[in-house]
Amino acid sequence: MTDNDYMSLAISLAGKGKGFTSPNPCVGAVVVKDGRVVGKGFHRAAGLAHAEVEAIDDAGSMAKGATIYVTLEPCNHFGKTPPCTHKIINAGIKKVVVGCKDPNPNVCGGGIAYLRDNGIEVVTGVLQKEAQALIEEFIWYVQNDKIPFVILKCASTLDGRIATATGDSKWITNEKSRAFVHQIRHQVDAILVGSGTLHADNPSLTSRIEGVQTKDPVRIILDTHLTIKEDANVLTQKSNAKTIIVTGTGASKEKRALIESKGAQILEVSLKQEKLDLNELMIKLGQMSILSLLIEGGSVVAGSALKAGIVNKVLFFLAPKFFGSDDGIPVFQGKGPKLIKDAFELKKSTVTLFDTDMLVQGYLN
Amino acid sequence: MTDNDYMSLAISLAGKGKGFTSPNPCVGAVVVKDGRVVGKGFHRAAGLAHAEVEAIDDAGSMAKGATIYVTLEPCNHFGKTPPCTHKIINAGIKKVVVGCKDPNPNVCGGGIAYLRDNGIEVVTGVLQKEAQALIEEFIWYVQNDKIPFVILKCASTLDGRIATATGDSKWITNEKSRAFVHQIRHQVDAILVGSGTLHADNPSLTSRIEGVQTKDPVRIILDTHLTIKEDANVLTQKSNAKTIIVTGTGASKEKRALIESKGAQILEVSLKQEKLDLNELMIKLGQMSILSLLIEGGSVVAGSALKAGIVNKVLFFLAPKFFGSDDGIPVFQGKGPKLIKDAFELKKSTVTLFDTDMLVQGYLN
Repeated sequence: MTDNDYMSLAISLAGKGKGFTSPNPCVGAVVVKDGRVVGKGFHRAAGLAHAEVEAIDDAGSMAKGATIYVTLEPCNHFGKTPPCTHKIINAGIKKVVVGCKDPNPNVCGGGIAYLRDNGIEVVTGVLQKEAQALIEEFIWYVQNDKIPFVILKCASTLDGRIATATGDSKWITNEKSRAFVHQIRHQVDAILVGSGTLHADNPSLTSRIEGVQTKDPVRIILDTHLTIKEDANVLTQKSNAKTIIVTGTGASKEKRALIESKGAQILEVSLKQEKLDLNELMIKLGQMSILSLLIEGGSVVAGSALKAGIVNKVLFFLAPKFFGSDDGIPVFQGKGPKLIKDAFELKKSTVTLFDTDMLVQGYLN
Repeated sequence: MTDNDYMSLAISLAGKGKGFTSPNPCVGAVVVKDGRVVGKGFHRAAGLAHAEVEAIDDAGSMAKGATIYVTLEPCNHFGKTPPCTHKIINAGIKKVVVGCKDPNPNVCGGGIAYLRDNGIEVVTGVLQKEAQALIEEFIWYVQNDKIPFVILKCASTLDGRIATATGDSKWITNEKSRAFVHQIRHQVDAILVGSGTLHADNPSLTSRIEGVQTKDPVRIILDTHLTIKEDANVLTQKSNAKTIIVTGTGASKEKRALIESKGAQILEVSLKQEKLDLNELMIKLGQMSILSLLIEGGSVVAGSALKAGIVNKVLFFLAPKFFGSDDGIPVFQGKGPKLIKDAFELKKSTVTLFDTDMLVQGYLN
């Protein structure tokens, strides 16, 4: 087993916490002694033990003289739990191998320096890219004035349609694709749709994965004129997450009170050319400790989000089918570029297959 | 080396002839003696030697007592060349391994029976699917009343657009994708576009692959009202293939004469709801020994071809970019299905990557 192998194990442990740890990043750790894994741990949820603490406790007395592999630089400050650097030093760990440094500019490198000052060997940058990818939303958030990391999900036919002209949309993609979306819903802090999707589909916007405990994302509905019906699923269903209705400033007090009485929160946002200002909304959501946001549609919201420049990452599902027409509902609405060179182009794009469906993933900017 | 390995070699040899052999299928053959390849051959062009003859001649005296692997059942009739079965028997070949039987219902199995009657061991069905895939257009043509095998090529953004609202279309896909299209153009007998594409792009519709000798496909332009300009590239360029302009019955005699004077052929087809009857056109093209046809657009023609039910195979190129709008030119035009279940669905779909571009291939019915 090489450093990469142990770090890879730590990364897969970290992944188990993904979705439960926000506003903390997910972190994994492995304690290795004499070439043997003697302790494993990961951060299970905000407020619970950090990964290093779990792994060292798991190793027990074997931690003395051992090496710990941790996906993220150990913290060096008192938060909800004491600093992990102290735990590492006190356990007699000899060497620390770090995936990526703490992205927070205020604390980056502090943990590593403190460990080195205390005579511990520290190696950094092992599987750094993978360790960073694991917490990309956290890195973005702490380095960009607490603006959420926004993932836009689209699911269309090969000819770019999300529903037929009559509105039939169930289903374009296959079960495996849809199951993967539920995993993503579990991993993000919030999910956003427009009122068009709300009225057309009356969606639940929960994370449902058979046989697995999941966390629902906060549901955010863009509803400029507060048109939501009081019996909408997002207001009446049982869920471990709240619903936020985003409106302009003109909604009636009575309707607001009615919606609030259902347990939902109303969030007012300015209008910009008669549309909700999505940049202002991102600032407000960031202040509410929403680090990551999944936009699931429909086509007007998707087009507006792109135009507002708030999208970091795109998940584009494509099924091997098409309408062969131009009368279905397009995946995006709005005005497009005049020239091909001004089209949105996915960076670092990859393709994943779910049977015959494709998932094209990539980044904007 | 197993039977599959030798057949695989024969298939790759056959591929070298693809594009040059029509109306014959491409065929490859390998002569093996004492576990050693002693002869190789492929059908280079209609009128030239068949693959078996090339391979046996290449083997020379080593052919005696050897085994021949051939992708397609050897012919047993006098055409432009004598029957390959005679060549095999006269050369003293002991065993014949066949990829797929002759798909032509009139001759299927005849060659194999004749060989067996002459005391030669014959094994069939080795890499049969691959051997059939190699000549799928030929199989379709001979088994379906000489109707061409139609391949529809599309190339769009992830949101299903082939050009911006202003008509900019160069380039959505990357160089590798476009190079692959030139290979396909070389392989098919004919290529078809509508007058919209003709006027917008003034295309050459030739097969251009750097450093490789290629054959241009016959160019077919759907031009109901004979609007083509006399200086269009397809009329003036140098090419080893002809141009056919398909019109309705109302075109002026003067314009017809002018176009014909440029060396192009005018082909009249009935109108059906004011559109050229594509089914009638397919019958006429089949009679002209066009076994395979590549439809390259634009969106009206692509939509009409799908609706007419003439498309056998789809090549859908997708680049990892999108307009984020609904104002670009859609990949298809026309009316679509009311329900998702009535969408066109690709059978046996596969995905091939050209760097970050995707090619989704599959079959209709």
